[in-house]
Amino acid sequence: MASLYEKRRTLALGEGGREYLQKRQEISQAAGRVFKRKGLSATNVNDIATEAEVDRATLYYYFGSKQEIFEEVVTAAVTNNAKGAEVIRLGPGTGPDKLRNLIVSLMVSYAAHYPFLYVFIQENLTQLGKTRPEWSKAMRDLNHQYEASIIGIIQDGIADGTLSATGDAKTIAYGLLGMLGWTNRWFSPEDSSQSAEEIGNTFADVFLGGLIPRG
Amino acid sequence: MASLYEKRRTLALGEGGREYLQKRQEISQAAGRVFKRKGLSATNVNDIATEAEVDRATLYYYFGSKQEIFEEVVTAAVTNNAKGAEVIRLGPGTGPDKLRNLIVSLMVSYAAHYPFLYVFIQENLTQLGKTRPEWSKAMRDLNHQYEASIIGIIQDGIADGTLSATGDAKTIAYGLLGMLGWTNRWFSPEDSSQSAEEIGNTFADVFLGGLIPRG
Repeated sequence: MASLYEKRRTLALGEGGREYLQKRQEISQAAGRVFKRKGLSATNVNDIATEAEVDRATLYYYFGSKQEIFEEVVTAAVTNNAKGAEVIRLGPGTGPDKLRNLIVSLMVSYAAHYPFLYVFIQENLTQLGKTRPEWSKAMRDLNHQYEASIIGIIQDGIADGTLSATGDAKTIAYGLLGMLGWTNRWFSPEDSSQSAEEIGNTFADVFLGGLIPRG
Repeated sequence: MASLYEKRRTLALGEGGREYLQKRQEISQAAGRVFKRKGLSATNVNDIATEAEVDRATLYYYFGSKQEIFEEVVTAAVTNNAKGAEVIRLGPGTGPDKLRNLIVSLMVSYAAHYPFLYVFIQENLTQLGKTRPEWSKAMRDLNHQYEASIIGIIQDGIADGTLSATGDAKTIAYGLLGMLGWTNRWFSPEDSSQSAEEIGNTFADVFLGGLIPRG
């Protein structure tokens, strides 16, 4: 049955009609809300169809599975963030400029793809690695690239004197990733009185300037 | 059957013999290793008995259930951390002194109770809230107390001028909690080349002094 839908879906995607793509986006966002509420593994296609207010057959005209919906958004966002971090690392500016840019960009990405990246953070990676080993490995590789870019920015900044050496660069990078990744537990762009940019800038201020008054 | 063991267990615990308590501690540590490897819900009493190299009946002489092992360590650690944070907040010293003390203390607590607090962080809280509603609520309340102490230290420090106001105190506190809590993903006291104190001090250096060179 799936293959019957698959042909129609592939055709419609290939044509890329505006209405089709918009409906697809709506279903994806509805899926995100269910993933956030129930977790990825507890969600089934019927839950998504109900949330999106379409029937099951209609849903299959847009997506082949819940996993496809999840992976499509996460892959695009994680790929984009990894590329972005490397562009920042190789680009102009001092260490502090680059770190602020990277911090605010990641917060903005969390908000733009809400709640997909947060669901991804919350997922049991061991479990995902079992059911989707290749995809999990690809995502893990991209995360490692992202980490390497941060560590590189910190090391370069220490070398050129625009950042101070306060400890192991990897520990500092993981501290920063922790600040940012932990927002999955408390930040929702819909409910927050602060924007992703504001939170990113507060984090950048603390991480770069520290809490001890200067001068 | 459980009640048969329960009497003997309660008696032995009451007597508090050194050998009994030491064996109990060994079983608890074995359980921690299994929880870390398999997750709390996928672990059963047989897994723990196997890891601890005791039979199931012997295990029941020491603990009533896997949940009891888990909750005993987590409750003690979370309670102690919440009290400790409030003692630090009310004690002597500047804002930076207090934050450094709190940061290093929490890292040391993660290591001392390894991997129990990390398993607790990784647990699905919604699920725990369903199966153990009262205990979950008690832990959540203690976590809120802990957060309130950090936010208080930051607000007091800003008020007395020993900390600079770089943004919303709650956002700063959550950033710090993120740095620390995220270590569940990469720090293990057994494998780490850095001690919990070293990591805590690096975090404190960055968080307090920032990465932009002074002077």
